[in-house]
Amino acid sequence: MTMQNITPVLLCGGCGTRLWPLSRTSYPKQFAAIFGDESLFQRTARRSSDVRFAAPLVITHADFRFIVTEQLVATGIDPGPILLEPEGRNTGPAVLAAALHLGATDPDQLMLILPSDQVMPDAAAFRAAVTEGEAAALAGDLVVFGITPDRAETGFGYLETAVDSGLGRVRSFIEKPQIAQAEQMLASGGYLWNAGMILCTPRAMIAAFGAHAPQLVAPVRAALTGARADLGFLRLAAGPWAEAEAISIDYAVMEHARNLSVVRYAGRWSDLGSWEAVWREASPDAAGVATIGPAQALGCRDTLLHAEDEGQVLIGIGLEGVIVVATPDAVLVADRSRAQDVRRAVDVLRLTGAPQADSFALRHRAWGTVETLVSGEGFMVQRVILHPGGTLGVQGLPGRVETWQLVSGVARALQGGSWHRIEPRQSVEITSPGFVQIENGGDLPVVWIVVQIGDDPGAQGICGHQTAENSAETAPCLMG
Amino acid sequence: MTMQNITPVLLCGGCGTRLWPLSRTSYPKQFAAIFGDESLFQRTARRSSDVRFAAPLVITHADFRFIVTEQLVATGIDPGPILLEPEGRNTGPAVLAAALHLGATDPDQLMLILPSDQVMPDAAAFRAAVTEGEAAALAGDLVVFGITPDRAETGFGYLETAVDSGLGRVRSFIEKPQIAQAEQMLASGGYLWNAGMILCTPRAMIAAFGAHAPQLVAPVRAALTGARADLGFLRLAAGPWAEAEAISIDYAVMEHARNLSVVRYAGRWSDLGSWEAVWREASPDAAGVATIGPAQALGCRDTLLHAEDEGQVLIGIGLEGVIVVATPDAVLVADRSRAQDVRRAVDVLRLTGAPQADSFALRHRAWGTVETLVSGEGFMVQRVILHPGGTLGVQGLPGRVETWQLVSGVARALQGGSWHRIEPRQSVEITSPGFVQIENGGDLPVVWIVVQIGDDPGAQGICGHQTAENSAETAPCLMG
Repeated sequence: MTMQNITPVLLCGGCGTRLWPLSRTSYPKQFAAIFGDESLFQRTARRSSDVRFAAPLVITHADFRFIVTEQLVATGIDPGPILLEPEGRNTGPAVLAAALHLGATDPDQLMLILPSDQVMPDAAAFRAAVTEGEAAALAGDLVVFGITPDRAETGFGYLETAVDSGLGRVRSFIEKPQIAQAEQMLASGGYLWNAGMILCTPRAMIAAFGAHAPQLVAPVRAALTGARADLGFLRLAAGPWAEAEAISIDYAVMEHARNLSVVRYAGRWSDLGSWEAVWREASPDAAGVATIGPAQALGCRDTLLHAEDEGQVLIGIGLEGVIVVATPDAVLVADRSRAQDVRRAVDVLRLTGAPQADSFALRHRAWGTVETLVSGEGFMVQRVILHPGGTLGVQGLPGRVETWQLVSGVARALQGGSWHRIEPRQSVEITSPGFVQIENGGDLPVVWIVVQIGDDPGAQGICGHQTAENSAETAPCLMG
Repeated sequence: MTMQNITPVLLCGGCGTRLWPLSRTSYPKQFAAIFGDESLFQRTARRSSDVRFAAPLVITHADFRFIVTEQLVATGIDPGPILLEPEGRNTGPAVLAAALHLGATDPDQLMLILPSDQVMPDAAAFRAAVTEGEAAALAGDLVVFGITPDRAETGFGYLETAVDSGLGRVRSFIEKPQIAQAEQMLASGGYLWNAGMILCTPRAMIAAFGAHAPQLVAPVRAALTGARADLGFLRLAAGPWAEAEAISIDYAVMEHARNLSVVRYAGRWSDLGSWEAVWREASPDAAGVATIGPAQALGCRDTLLHAEDEGQVLIGIGLEGVIVVATPDAVLVADRSRAQDVRRAVDVLRLTGAPQADSFALRHRAWGTVETLVSGEGFMVQRVILHPGGTLGVQGLPGRVETWQLVSGVARALQGGSWHRIEPRQSVEITSPGFVQIENGGDLPVVWIVVQIGDDPGAQGICGHQTAENSAETAPCLMG
């Protein structure tokens, strides 16, 4: 078997709220560190980053672009192209865009479509399964990966197959069945769950869209043709993209395609589709109790206690079948049987106008992060982290003073026509109408505590600038 | 009936943890705003503050002295003497100290002993009941107040009496019975719960101690004789106070006294002795669901959702018989039947060294408050509020810089030998070895945001000073 480079295609544009409050529209579950220090997206990138793999193609929502680059930089993985969706259109158009983009270079190379919100801790089993599917994919099949079902789950696709181990044919593909059919398929033993990964050539995938979802081809091709480079990203053209039907790859192609092969996957796998699934993956003890973070269970059974922040302790007493997720700005307590109603809770929160429904206090920017630590009448305190090579500008606003105090690292600031070196415990004061440019020319992040005192402290005077390694374009100054 | 001034005696030295995380050793439940804006202590003070009542005598633990004054100032009630206990010795010594202190002026006046952690929303019924007991108290009885029991509660005292309404004799007093006896007394109908309030003269109370708990009289009298004035408080002498037996007024006197009268009290009453009791008092709806703060219940039953902070939303889904209390630094989720195990949870937390077991981020000082808003590696941000007339000093510490930025109010600062006027958006920078004295000479609180950058930002450089209206003494400078 040839050792050919495979290009991972990381799909990470989804914005599910089933894991709220850890997953929010502005920072969804694939980017959250639900177990340990790395996010599901980072683990997916790492899993598909050894010598077998080329640099990944990432396709994500435009809003998540700085999260993606920041998380890839943290893993030390250099990304290939990063395609930005102007709006979410589900996985069908995203997969097609990736296939068209890679196909333009080499339509017969191998690509591996990877949802980036899955738990697959056994990287060796993952790579062995990919190798198992390689020949069939090179021969023109769409190779999927099958998980032995252990319950009548209605949220997955089912693959009808006779394969015992290794590679086999898929007789039929049933996406998200009703419960009766799911129970029947579980009982028959002739079905596997579809893990959501696809190994194929761009040529095979483009052909499958041509045969089964031809309506997508023209708009997605136009969105790619009209794409423009922006700070190192490739931004799909919004007009044609909006015309592409919002449909999953499973409904668009996989249910209809006849050239499906399946590799039976024996390693642990979860899509973390609900808090119930997180509980299963969190290694519950003999009493069924799983704790994550600074949480303690006293006399509990079949319960998940998840405390996100080191500064917030969580205590459960005498609970049975309860899921508790505590974050500094939102707490969820749900009966385990009602884990799927979390979405409803988010809808209710939205109606009340609570920002916690969709967003966190932390915002990602090209040059770093801005985190609102605390605010109140007449003041706001933020922590600003400026990445190495990053540059930002701050516009002084009328009626207020901003004091930028340097906590760690060394920066330089252009103020009043001259450059100043700023070291820890030194500060920069910014008042209207002044403008200050701040650069991190060092190798370490520069951490600032910024205090805004005065009128309208919420208004953002920080202007985004590119990082030095990025493109020569200049991002517009975002005011307000 | 004569309209005689009655001196309320507010007992507020307790430090129970049964309502953790809202009640903590450093800031116990009587000072917490569990319902609405005012604390139980403030409501107790307000309930006993009309024309019938003299200024209250307060007896509390020394650690709570600034909480007491701050909370009384906020209600607009001028306190009488505030006796400080160097350590908690239960209610017996506290009641005796109050009786001895008031008896020195007039042993035949009326005093009304009031626990300050009770809910009694009907102030008119409260005052009518006090009036009902006045004659018997003036005649030398210890007048208690009886609540019709509705369950076999084992945490209360029971009064055997034939009184139907108004005043009657108490035949016997049974403190904290076993459950079998409690059930028997509930079934018999001849018993009332003791509400914990006592109306009497100092002479009668001192005589009761002399008869039933004579061992307390000498040490408590010595603690009072040796008391010293301190910033407007009367600090009981620690040596003799430590020798007074730690015993409740009920075990020391009430179980044994034969001169007990009881007024049957028909208004609503609760001692908020557990989260179960808070749930009962929080007006649960038809499904038994009570929410306090930014909390929402979806499909819950018999559940209490208590969110303390406006910045932290709480969602309960499908819960049955659960108590959830969310605060910014600690979350409790308990089965309602296990509400009494909260104390155990606090013990477990203490073992882990978590500060949340005993303290909040907010600290009260004579001149105002210090609140740690956020801290991290190399920095700490605090909000400091300086009361009108308040003075404080800040000692610069080696290896760090403090920047005090004024948010509202006007202050003056003595730095480098001269006074400076500080207005909003101006700041004071404090470095080692400098010392800065800051005064609030205005009528409004002065609010500061203080950022400490550098070594050991937790170390406290703020020195407590008296407020101008207080005594001429100077509190010691507290470092570290």
